[in-house]
Amino acid sequence: MGGQSCLGGGLRSLSAFLFLLITDRSHIWTSCHATKPDMLNVHLVPHTHDDVGWLKTVDQYYYGDRNDIQHAGVQYILDSVVDQLLKNPDRRFIYVETAFFYRWWKRQDSSMKQTVQQLVNEGRLEFVNGGWCMSDEATTHYSAVIDQMTMGLRFLNDTFGVCGRPRVAWHIDPFGHAREHASMFAQMGYDGFFFGRLDYQDRYQRMMQKEQELLWRASDSLTPPMADLFTGILPNGYNPPDGFCWDQSCSDPPIRDDPDLEDYNVDDVVKRFLNIASAQSMVYKTNHIIMTMGSDFQYENANLWYKNLDKLIHYVNAQQDLGSRVNVLYSTPSCYLQELHRANLTWALKTDDFFPYADDAHDFWTGYFSSRPALKRYERLSNSNLQTCNQLEVLGGPTSTNGPFGKGDKKAMAVAQHHDAVSGTEKQHVANDYARRLATGWQHCQVLVSNGLAVLSGSTAQRFYCDYLNISVCPLTESSKKVTQTHTFYLYFPWDNVYKVCLYTTITATITDYNNSNNNILFSCLNPVCCVFRYNASDGNNSESIQPSGAYIFRPNSSTPFLISSTAKTEFIQTSVVQEVRQWFSPWVSQVVRLYAHSRTLELEWTVGPLPIHDDLGKEVITRIDTSIESSEIFYTDSNGREVLQRKKDFRPTWHLKQSEPIAGNYYPINSRAYIKDDVDQLTVVTDRSQGGSSIHNGSLEIMLHRRLLYDDVRGVAEPLNETSAIFPEGLVVRGRLLLSLDRPASAADKHRPLAQEMVLQPLLTFTDGDLHPDAKLEFSGLQAALPPAVHLLTLTQWDAQSVLLRLEHQFQSWESDVNSKPVTVNLQTDKQTNKQTDKPWQKHNLLGVGGPTGGATDQPWRSVRWQVESDTVYINSVTHTHTHTHTHTH
Amino acid sequence: MGGQSCLGGGLRSLSAFLFLLITDRSHIWTSCHATKPDMLNVHLVPHTHDDVGWLKTVDQYYYGDRNDIQHAGVQYILDSVVDQLLKNPDRRFIYVETAFFYRWWKRQDSSMKQTVQQLVNEGRLEFVNGGWCMSDEATTHYSAVIDQMTMGLRFLNDTFGVCGRPRVAWHIDPFGHAREHASMFAQMGYDGFFFGRLDYQDRYQRMMQKEQELLWRASDSLTPPMADLFTGILPNGYNPPDGFCWDQSCSDPPIRDDPDLEDYNVDDVVKRFLNIASAQSMVYKTNHIIMTMGSDFQYENANLWYKNLDKLIHYVNAQQDLGSRVNVLYSTPSCYLQELHRANLTWALKTDDFFPYADDAHDFWTGYFSSRPALKRYERLSNSNLQTCNQLEVLGGPTSTNGPFGKGDKKAMAVAQHHDAVSGTEKQHVANDYARRLATGWQHCQVLVSNGLAVLSGSTAQRFYCDYLNISVCPLTESSKKVTQTHTFYLYFPWDNVYKVCLYTTITATITDYNNSNNNILFSCLNPVCCVFRYNASDGNNSESIQPSGAYIFRPNSSTPFLISSTAKTEFIQTSVVQEVRQWFSPWVSQVVRLYAHSRTLELEWTVGPLPIHDDLGKEVITRIDTSIESSEIFYTDSNGREVLQRKKDFRPTWHLKQSEPIAGNYYPINSRAYIKDDVDQLTVVTDRSQGGSSIHNGSLEIMLHRRLLYDDVRGVAEPLNETSAIFPEGLVVRGRLLLSLDRPASAADKHRPLAQEMVLQPLLTFTDGDLHPDAKLEFSGLQAALPPAVHLLTLTQWDAQSVLLRLEHQFQSWESDVNSKPVTVNLQTDKQTNKQTDKPWQKHNLLGVGGPTGGATDQPWRSVRWQVESDTVYINSVTHTHTHTHTHTH
Repeated sequence: MGGQSCLGGGLRSLSAFLFLLITDRSHIWTSCHATKPDMLNVHLVPHTHDDVGWLKTVDQYYYGDRNDIQHAGVQYILDSVVDQLLKNPDRRFIYVETAFFYRWWKRQDSSMKQTVQQLVNEGRLEFVNGGWCMSDEATTHYSAVIDQMTMGLRFLNDTFGVCGRPRVAWHIDPFGHAREHASMFAQMGYDGFFFGRLDYQDRYQRMMQKEQELLWRASDSLTPPMADLFTGILPNGYNPPDGFCWDQSCSDPPIRDDPDLEDYNVDDVVKRFLNIASAQSMVYKTNHIIMTMGSDFQYENANLWYKNLDKLIHYVNAQQDLGSRVNVLYSTPSCYLQELHRANLTWALKTDDFFPYADDAHDFWTGYFSSRPALKRYERLSNSNLQTCNQLEVLGGPTSTNGPFGKGDKKAMAVAQHHDAVSGTEKQHVANDYARRLATGWQHCQVLVSNGLAVLSGSTAQRFYCDYLNISVCPLTESSKKVTQTHTFYLYFPWDNVYKVCLYTTITATITDYNNSNNNILFSCLNPVCCVFRYNASDGNNSESIQPSGAYIFRPNSSTPFLISSTAKTEFIQTSVVQEVRQWFSPWVSQVVRLYAHSRTLELEWTVGPLPIHDDLGKEVITRIDTSIESSEIFYTDSNGREVLQRKKDFRPTWHLKQSEPIAGNYYPINSRAYIKDDVDQLTVVTDRSQGGSSIHNGSLEIMLHRRLLYDDVRGVAEPLNETSAIFPEGLVVRGRLLLSLDRPASAADKHRPLAQEMVLQPLLTFTDGDLHPDAKLEFSGLQAALPPAVHLLTLTQWDAQSVLLRLEHQFQSWESDVNSKPVTVNLQTDKQTNKQTDKPWQKHNLLGVGGPTGGATDQPWRSVRWQVESDTVYINSVTHTHTHTHTHTH
Repeated sequence: MGGQSCLGGGLRSLSAFLFLLITDRSHIWTSCHATKPDMLNVHLVPHTHDDVGWLKTVDQYYYGDRNDIQHAGVQYILDSVVDQLLKNPDRRFIYVETAFFYRWWKRQDSSMKQTVQQLVNEGRLEFVNGGWCMSDEATTHYSAVIDQMTMGLRFLNDTFGVCGRPRVAWHIDPFGHAREHASMFAQMGYDGFFFGRLDYQDRYQRMMQKEQELLWRASDSLTPPMADLFTGILPNGYNPPDGFCWDQSCSDPPIRDDPDLEDYNVDDVVKRFLNIASAQSMVYKTNHIIMTMGSDFQYENANLWYKNLDKLIHYVNAQQDLGSRVNVLYSTPSCYLQELHRANLTWALKTDDFFPYADDAHDFWTGYFSSRPALKRYERLSNSNLQTCNQLEVLGGPTSTNGPFGKGDKKAMAVAQHHDAVSGTEKQHVANDYARRLATGWQHCQVLVSNGLAVLSGSTAQRFYCDYLNISVCPLTESSKKVTQTHTFYLYFPWDNVYKVCLYTTITATITDYNNSNNNILFSCLNPVCCVFRYNASDGNNSESIQPSGAYIFRPNSSTPFLISSTAKTEFIQTSVVQEVRQWFSPWVSQVVRLYAHSRTLELEWTVGPLPIHDDLGKEVITRIDTSIESSEIFYTDSNGREVLQRKKDFRPTWHLKQSEPIAGNYYPINSRAYIKDDVDQLTVVTDRSQGGSSIHNGSLEIMLHRRLLYDDVRGVAEPLNETSAIFPEGLVVRGRLLLSLDRPASAADKHRPLAQEMVLQPLLTFTDGDLHPDAKLEFSGLQAALPPAVHLLTLTQWDAQSVLLRLEHQFQSWESDVNSKPVTVNLQTDKQTNKQTDKPWQKHNLLGVGGPTGGATDQPWRSVRWQVESDTVYINSVTHTHTHTHTHTH
């Protein structure tokens, strides 16, 4: 053993463990190898990057199936790494993706489990990041990211205890980095964050200024240091330095150190390594540098890596006797981070984010913000369904889980957060697999929802789910049985001041008034200030760069989009419920502009596809809203559906941008909303899925709806993004909604915050084929009183048989609302005497109390998983609006 | 453990081991898994096939270097297999190539060595074949094959003792099989022989008749069963059955047996396996079948294979409870062979060989018989030099080994026997590596030869070696120093009744008479019955087949060769030593027809190249000798330089041939000689290297000299055989000699046997740059008396510090000479009283005695390595002419 263990060699008692939790964490990491203060210390970090689906499905990757597509088998990686760690106690390994680790773990016998626990205890195997997957940062919604992180971290906690706790967030591959992700990681208690991809101009400046290591202040609303996170940019993406890749997938020369054989190369290897280490040390601040020794699905045969790394360390360090000042060691990101911490330096401060990501002048990774729009919507819808399901499991009680309901739906959502899943950068067959998993998960959820509704309503009438209502297909209405009445079920989630669950009310019953005043400006965009355009995609046949547009990259072949049509076939419909304008711009672009009674929100329902490709040009379709707002090239986009960041055309806050792509280089991810504003007006667009968008002109906001491309963009997926299906053999047709809200800037957030939550958590419809029993309950709420408007119920889900997980959050940014950007207090106190009332589930579940605003939680290692409950009141401060308060309560 | 060990669990004592040697061998193999007599037993044999050079050099293969060319690293294979064998005692592995195992072994620590010894003792790791390499069968000479087998087997014996002894010869890849190889294997004591490649028509008939397992009677002269060898033809070459390749290099679906994951496929896998096993059992005789679970350089990550094989065995055998009659087990070729032995069947008898090999109608692997003619000659010359070196080490005594002389030269020759080395089927850079190794080995040998000659001559005058005399370059003659006299050193090896070592005689001194009578017929071939032709190579652009000619495959695009020229520029030279006709047929084909004084042998010295390719046609150049001999489409070729087999045009002895390639389908390997004959005359051609040849017409004999091809023949080497070099940028120029002897058939062997040995073991010239001291000895013989003409001294080499290895053989086939095909007795008795006479090395080395004809040796496991010495006389029977009598004598 090269050091002490996470638990001091596994000898410390549980009480020691509890003690450690409230002491300096660095004491825990005594398993790190010693470094030499007077030398350049090179931290070699053996690692594998295992995509939870990309070119192959997650299960194909796990098994090593379809190696004809890509050679990768995670089961073998874990087998092999454990074997090799046992061969030399100096060796280290980090593992990241719990979706894979879980699959592997449950197939191991107890002896192997014990072995792995020991490796974890001794710090030889270290989990980093530890979520179910390494989520995408541009196209995910924070609620789903928190869920997938919870799933992964919980598994590690349950399995390995404190020694399995990841200390470092590790997002080496996502294509740009969201501030909200850093904020979440900080709030989850990570000590640092490492990634590999950032804009090439940004990196160059940071190298010159030794600012590749920095402090990211990841919220403008949380009180520092609540969302502060040390952030390190890795030197070679996540690859080893040139010439030092010893995986089976590489072709670099192994260390040939048998003098009896040909081509003895130890001297050459050592010399090359020392040169690389010296060069790298020039662009980092301390006398410690890190090298990622691994890459995609590497270490399937870990012996190749370790055998050569052992030799490298041996021969390079042997040079110290000859005067070398370089010390090489096996390490982990935590151990590296500990050394940086000890250096006690001040790091550069960063308050914006790392979007967009470009790896060259014409290579902006801004296409995937919109790639696979149907999958992006289905993922968002699935999250809504899953939250419904989770809440009904709690509200409906144990009976609701009768049936095939498992954790498959949660897992399907968790893997869908992967940076090649909802991002749309996977192969078509893999996209199909993600969708199928979501569908299967939903099938299971339907059983639970039916069970839960039966409990809550007192009616066991069979419920039907019409999953194909979007194409006007419902098994119920198509059955031969006479349908006398269609009941519509609204499950209201806590948004827009309505915190009740409503059962069995018809759709018309919700609409009692009709008022479309104040929408005049919005309607002006029909003539045609709000119109649909297309960019033609670059095919790579270009004098400046051969980069085509593809699943990752957005590169229009001209900066001027083409109007689809200056005229449209138009119908106007007006009822007591809704008025709508139906527009057909072309056979493949139509739009319904819709205004509901009682609503001040204009809905644009767009239908795009199949995109024509007979001209051999890929198409990228945008909707563009041109207004008279004096936005001064400034616009705003949200980060993962939570905080909103300011954007400015052709500008980056921390470096002087040389803009080379006038359109693609100004695109940003829009997860839930974007807006432009001036002193008088703010136009907010709320989206139903993640999309890319920008403001290229003053007063203008454009959002990309659909993309169809004919060339692969040479980032590995090796397929053009050209979606077809059995239903749409001529090309995918996609439909979606944008909600437009025009408000005064000072009060706009009061509208768009609940509006966006309404989009994220939409009502779920169930149907019955007959009248309900008169005694059936038609309404139910799990709350005794409405939550304050600023407070959002983020999570309510069964944790285990004895406890449920409740997360509340303040949903307003500190500066965006005069009314709502204030601290609020929520009293969740329950009346224990009415414990048996089944219509008061929080009583029934015996919610024990509520913790202080941050009290007690800071030092808890698994902060993201469960929040310590200490009292009966939650103080939710406006500046901690993104701070999820997670409560457990037990039966 | 699934059974007892090779040594009964390692508990048996050395005396038990000695006892076992003379008992039924099958008792040793108690480590084999139990089989089920009432079921079909499927023997799964995990194995790797590790070419000792092919697309990469032998050391590149060992290290896993240049994985860009081919992914292969033998060091990792052995690391991984040992690891995996330890994980499950049921698992088995066989290893073949000692050249690689040796490299690995010497880098292991004592703990690993102990582990491996244990695996070997328990029969979990079994060595098969065990030579330094898996030699080529078509282009090797038996003396070099015996040497390389000795080197490998000796290493295994020294390292592992009896448990390391290979019981089975395993030539799964060579491209056709020589009878002499089978004979050698039988004489070396192997219990059986397995291979993978044979003519597709032959295989089809054998499948139909269940004759893929047979008894090969591999000599027409040795008394049966001395050269009888059980021979098994493997079902899938050496690959696993379709769909069951689980190496990292394969893409077959792994067994997906986690019901929670996608694509559970256990039922499908089991069904497919049972179908394959059933089909295979239809074409073999017993209720045991073998499946080779491995292939080229597989098991680098053995976990992939074993994990799936474990599951396969588990799930297939689980079907027995449901009525399945198939039993799958880990096995080895020895264990499989033991079961066949127990079946007690009579096998079909085979007395010819397995040449030529075709894998389809137009795909005859007869090109490699002649590929890389320069390398083939250099290998043969190197063997001659090595034998000189070996003998002088013995004769010169310990002083001769002062200097850098190691075993490198022996190893260079050993690896050159590999079936992608001397065969000419390797990539160009690998061919260069073999040649460089041979050159380096020879550099070391030169030191020993100089030392040895200094001892024997009593002169320490510096000796020079003129390695480039073939291009008339010698450092000695080109040095600025005045050269007063060139001394020529002849080291005569025991051929042609001359068994003496002659020192310092000039070349003219050996020629005292001049008589060229009886050579009239031969001279008739000058006008032009003996001429040079070329075939144009098929380029694959052909309606019958797209097969081009290449390194392996010979496929002329027409069956009629083109005469290079009907006229030649000619010079005639006559001296007292030699008369010669020099012929220039074209700028790239010339020939010297030479007749030395005192000789009845006509020498054709051919010079061919650079072959022109400006017409985009590959060329294959033959020399053809057309005579009036009534050969009736019958001709004779030797097998590995030893026994001669009869060939007949368009005919195979054991099946009705459907001939589809009139030329290539009649080509056979010629290692040392070929002849045609009638009742009156026999024309024998002795070659200076291995070449392909045939008799296409009555009285005609053709031999392929050189090949230059423009297309790869799609057998893996992925290079056209288009040799150029720095010296020959326009294409390789090759020179060689054919010796033609015209004799009466009854006495022809009396000429060609010694003539061929003279070609194989040629004199080695050394030079000094001044007069020798008058006291220097000019002659020396290690023999007290000449050996009988029938007896050939095959080997004389130092075995270790205390003993030397001596092999004598009867070199005549039983039917070929009235005079010499008789038993002979050699008395090697030494006078122990004159022990100290340094000019009588056999006395000096205290030769202890000589064994009986076969006595004692039959049951000795390592028969090929050392022969038991029991008395002072060797009885060498004519029918045992190929039986090498190997003697050890100690100091």
